[in-house]
Amino acid sequence: MHPLDEAIALRSTSRHEFMGATHPAYANMVGPFGGTTAAQLLQAALLHPERLGEPLALTVNFAAPVADGEIRFVARPVRTNRSTQHWIIEAHQTVHDTEGVVATATAVFAVRRETWSNVEAVMPANVPAPDAVPRMLVKGMPPWPQRYDMRFVEGAFPAAFDEQEQAHSRSTLWLRDEPPRALDFASLAALSDSFFPRIYIRRRRRAMIGTVSLTTYFHADSALLAQIGTRHVLGVAKALNYRHGYFDQTGELWSPEGQLLASTHQLVYFKD
Amino acid sequence: MHPLDEAIALRSTSRHEFMGATHPAYANMVGPFGGTTAAQLLQAALLHPERLGEPLALTVNFAAPVADGEIRFVARPVRTNRSTQHWIIEAHQTVHDTEGVVATATAVFAVRRETWSNVEAVMPANVPAPDAVPRMLVKGMPPWPQRYDMRFVEGAFPAAFDEQEQAHSRSTLWLRDEPPRALDFASLAALSDSFFPRIYIRRRRRAMIGTVSLTTYFHADSALLAQIGTRHVLGVAKALNYRHGYFDQTGELWSPEGQLLASTHQLVYFKD
Repeated sequence: MHPLDEAIALRSTSRHEFMGATHPAYANMVGPFGGTTAAQLLQAALLHPERLGEPLALTVNFAAPVADGEIRFVARPVRTNRSTQHWIIEAHQTVHDTEGVVATATAVFAVRRETWSNVEAVMPANVPAPDAVPRMLVKGMPPWPQRYDMRFVEGAFPAAFDEQEQAHSRSTLWLRDEPPRALDFASLAALSDSFFPRIYIRRRRRAMIGTVSLTTYFHADSALLAQIGTRHVLGVAKALNYRHGYFDQTGELWSPEGQLLASTHQLVYFKD
Repeated sequence: MHPLDEAIALRSTSRHEFMGATHPAYANMVGPFGGTTAAQLLQAALLHPERLGEPLALTVNFAAPVADGEIRFVARPVRTNRSTQHWIIEAHQTVHDTEGVVATATAVFAVRRETWSNVEAVMPANVPAPDAVPRMLVKGMPPWPQRYDMRFVEGAFPAAFDEQEQAHSRSTLWLRDEPPRALDFASLAALSDSFFPRIYIRRRRRAMIGTVSLTTYFHADSALLAQIGTRHVLGVAKALNYRHGYFDQTGELWSPEGQLLASTHQLVYFKD
């Protein structure tokens, strides 16, 4: 069983509730990788017997540090229309005998139909094939980056925090799960949070950081995801603005054939 | 009293509940302008006596058509930390004796501190001053665009649906409330939804559209907003991807001095 499938395995405990847990394979420096938490929140809706259609939009707010251990997910379809469905999902943990919300999410699902389609965002051109780019060295990193095969074309995680401020924080990279795993909505949600915080690329210095809010729009449906399989996808990320303790960054995930699979945006706390 | 202040006026009815209503000055073709609904949802948290700090992030999911009339807002602070606070907010309406959720929102508030700050997004250069650009003609438009002074430098709403497909959907415009009103978080939230659906700019043809999910990151704090006052801000918007009934668009709102006040992203349903 793939470690991501273990990490997002949830057990139904009542109509709207599921139990899950953090997984050591996706641990971060402290607590779990936020992408796995996002994937679990989405998975609670995906597994719900009343679910309609496929994910369109997911917003996850990280409300408190997630502790290693059990997580209780409450997933409620608050509005079901003919072809769309709206969800509120919460993650709860009990720490030191106190129960509290550690993350909230909203999700929109839909049954899609074919229409005129077009991509207006621009995929980076002249990017070498994944085989021609070396994999990022993950030795010494926390477990979660070891669960990804990342091949940076531009804007790699700095080998040293040399405090050489860069002109921008843009990254371009090929990435996939490691070991390989066929792309699905849960892994796409997790990949959306796998872009390193832009402030590290930009400033090359230590900073305390934490994602506050993460939004992903799923442009791919399951048929398109099936075409990707276990291949790499191309990720692009950049920051927009850093101000008074928070910055935002935006990312795109592209199929090798030039289809935009997902666009993703996040707001990140930082302390310099 | 400014019509926006009338539109976002809410009456506290219990600890977490407020009553409001749609306002004819912000009516759309059918139902209200979504930006006003977003501003009302944010306002419910802003007015809540347990509110901590200022808005950082707001995501609104439009779950069902909002009918003209009363709206019941339920705003719950689900997690309050030392300097951040997480909200789940719902808008309910009773239509034909049936009560239901018409919109959901999550919000993050925070007390900010000064840090290293930097803007990495690029404000359009060589944009003429607002006085040098004519105001968009609003005659014949629904009420809500008449509540804005929009001066398009590029990518105006098409004067006719001539079906001349454009190469892109990018718009650059000066905009402010009409009549003028000092910028605050509520009006910034509404402005974030004031970018016309990109598909109209791109395809110049009729389409059924509806915003499904809207996320805004507030980079400005109240001190910076006070510096803007009633002046125009510069808006930039573009689409990323159109596929199988949904497209996403992204926008930026800039101060005349080049500070990024907010970045905003939305997913829009369309039927061609």
